Amino acid sequence: MSSNITELETRLQHIAGSIPPFDQEAARRAELHSDQLTKPPGSLGKLEAIAAQLAGATGELWPDLSKRAVIVMAADHGVCEEGISAFPQAVTPQMVHNFLNGGAAVNVLARQARAEVVCVDIGVAAELEHENLVSRKVVWGTRNMAKEAAMTRLEAVEAIMTGIAVVEAEVAKGARLFATGEMGIGNTTASAAITSVLADLSPELTVGRGTGINDGVLAHKVEVVKRAIGLNQPDSGDPLDVLAKVGGAEIAGLVGVIIGASAHRCPVVIDGYISTTAALVASKLAPASVPYMLASHLSHELGHSRLMEAVGLSPLIHLEMRLGEGTGAVLAFHLLDASLLLMKEMATFDSAGISKS
Amino acid sequence: MSSNITELETRLQHIAGSIPPFDQEAARRAELHSDQLTKPPGSLGKLEAIAAQLAGATGELWPDLSKRAVIVMAADHGVCEEGISAFPQAVTPQMVHNFLNGGAAVNVLARQARAEVVCVDIGVAAELEHENLVSRKVVWGTRNMAKEAAMTRLEAVEAIMTGIAVVEAEVAKGARLFATGEMGIGNTTASAAITSVLADLSPELTVGRGTGINDGVLAHKVEVVKRAIGLNQPDSGDPLDVLAKVGGAEIAGLVGVIIGASAHRCPVVIDGYISTTAALVASKLAPASVPYMLASHLSHELGHSRLMEAVGLSPLIHLEMRLGEGTGAVLAFHLLDASLLLMKEMATFDSAGISKS
Repeated sequence: MSSNITELETRLQHIAGSIPPFDQEAARRAELHSDQLTKPPGSLGKLEAIAAQLAGATGELWPDLSKRAVIVMAADHGVCEEGISAFPQAVTPQMVHNFLNGGAAVNVLARQARAEVVCVDIGVAAELEHENLVSRKVVWGTRNMAKEAAMTRLEAVEAIMTGIAVVEAEVAKGARLFATGEMGIGNTTASAAITSVLADLSPELTVGRGTGINDGVLAHKVEVVKRAIGLNQPDSGDPLDVLAKVGGAEIAGLVGVIIGASAHRCPVVIDGYISTTAALVASKLAPASVPYMLASHLSHELGHSRLMEAVGLSPLIHLEMRLGEGTGAVLAFHLLDASLLLMKEMATFDSAGISKS
Repeated sequence: MSSNITELETRLQHIAGSIPPFDQEAARRAELHSDQLTKPPGSLGKLEAIAAQLAGATGELWPDLSKRAVIVMAADHGVCEEGISAFPQAVTPQMVHNFLNGGAAVNVLARQARAEVVCVDIGVAAELEHENLVSRKVVWGTRNMAKEAAMTRLEAVEAIMTGIAVVEAEVAKGARLFATGEMGIGNTTASAAITSVLADLSPELTVGRGTGINDGVLAHKVEVVKRAIGLNQPDSGDPLDVLAKVGGAEIAGLVGVIIGASAHRCPVVIDGYISTTAALVASKLAPASVPYMLASHLSHELGHSRLMEAVGLSPLIHLEMRLGEGTGAVLAFHLLDASLLLMKEMATFDSAGISKS
């Protein structure tokens, strides 16, 4: 197994190193075009910045991002046995079925945004079978991080490589734009632990109410995160160590989604708290992936704002959502579409005969 | 003319008084339905609040808001002769042509959101003719508020009644959802003056850079607003007096759009700084219109945040836009659509067989 992990880590490093640099020239061309459109320079705010970022990411002034997918990674968390969630662990596989049957929030919003929902079992602690499920179980739920490491380093890297493979399969089918999504009862606890270690924030600032716990459970959840960190002593300079010891399989999978999308020059929209934790890990493992990331919404989960700052993202939508699944990221697809449509369809000062300032 | 203004004001008061009360029962039914959907209660944040508001406004659990329009009111401002804008006044009619030819930002975003653009000349200081233009000139530009009242009280009320009439024509054609939009070089100056008086804020807090003025012009613009208020002494207890003396025809028209939409139980999405000024005036003239208003984006214009608070609105989208035209409001249509689609299409805990907490 020792050679296996070395080999896998080498492959991961190779892919991380293969992420093409952001195309500054294409971004600059987008900015120049934007300044010719019939509006005061910069007045479309972040819509102009998004257009430039999409150009720099793809290398095309008006990339066709009509084929897009939200990758929903599902996994369970051993730490649930500490009683840190408002919902029982059984909800994870139940919600996976809901995704596969098209009845969850992310399905509705993905249909609205003309995106495919790709649901991946990367670590659910239950047998799951469905023709539309991508079955890539790396673990049968993680172990309880309050008592031992949640995953081995090998499992964490395997989950990342799985995320990369899932993205590559979608790219092969023509997808050019991705959103991150997840489902996993207990995963705000793992996210808080990762964020505390990698962003150097006390658990009081990173542990939130998740699906809706009360004050008593919240205090207990903070204590559990502190215990997990104290027991496992994750090395803040080694993102894989942190991901393995206090993380989760779906978070690792999303790290792979982000790195894989970046390697293929596909922009990737980051959803809420858990997804942003994956973005933080990806930014450490593969700094070149950051320019391919776009923020979506500011979650209601405590700590999301600080976490986004740590990655260098700033949110577009403020809806106080705290659902995950990729719901906020898919909503932001409309804003990306708006940005590209404005670039393509607006008149220029010259074509419309309008006076410049 | 004295009887004319009395009669018109009475008609306006009658319409303002005819706004149906918000249907608390329908809003409550929407909330109950939302709590049965497969997600933790409240986890869709403001999307749930929007669904409840749309139900309460229309009286229907799932209103059909597919027919929608953005009303773009265009007018000129005499105060432009004080040199308070980065663009010459000629840009107002030029941009009206751009709207009519479909090349402006609001046209692109309205097409994306399947909304009609209704462009109204309510006070442009130029001859304008076009088959798609709604020609309802109340003034030939306002007078320079730094030297005299911008409008007479009669002109202000006529402009409001025009806005109501424009909305009623669209309602007659089937529209059920509105967005406010405007074009008028100089109108952030008028908006700042109104906001300073009605929200009791010093011009230093309400005067912003508009289409992009430098520090020197900004200081001058603050001074011009102070001079206009000092000279005209608008009565902060009389919104019509404020609107007439330091306002603008397009702002008054939008007050009418908001009141007219509310009277027909049509939700109305408020755009940026100028539109929110109209919302503030509408909230004073017709407090019953407030529950029909939905905020859209937080503008980059200084003072917009305080202005929204004064109306009781909180923004959904944070894109640092500062263009007006209705662009931010039309973008928010996607979020309203998302909210209604979630209500209609999500599975319930029972139908999906998912454990409740």
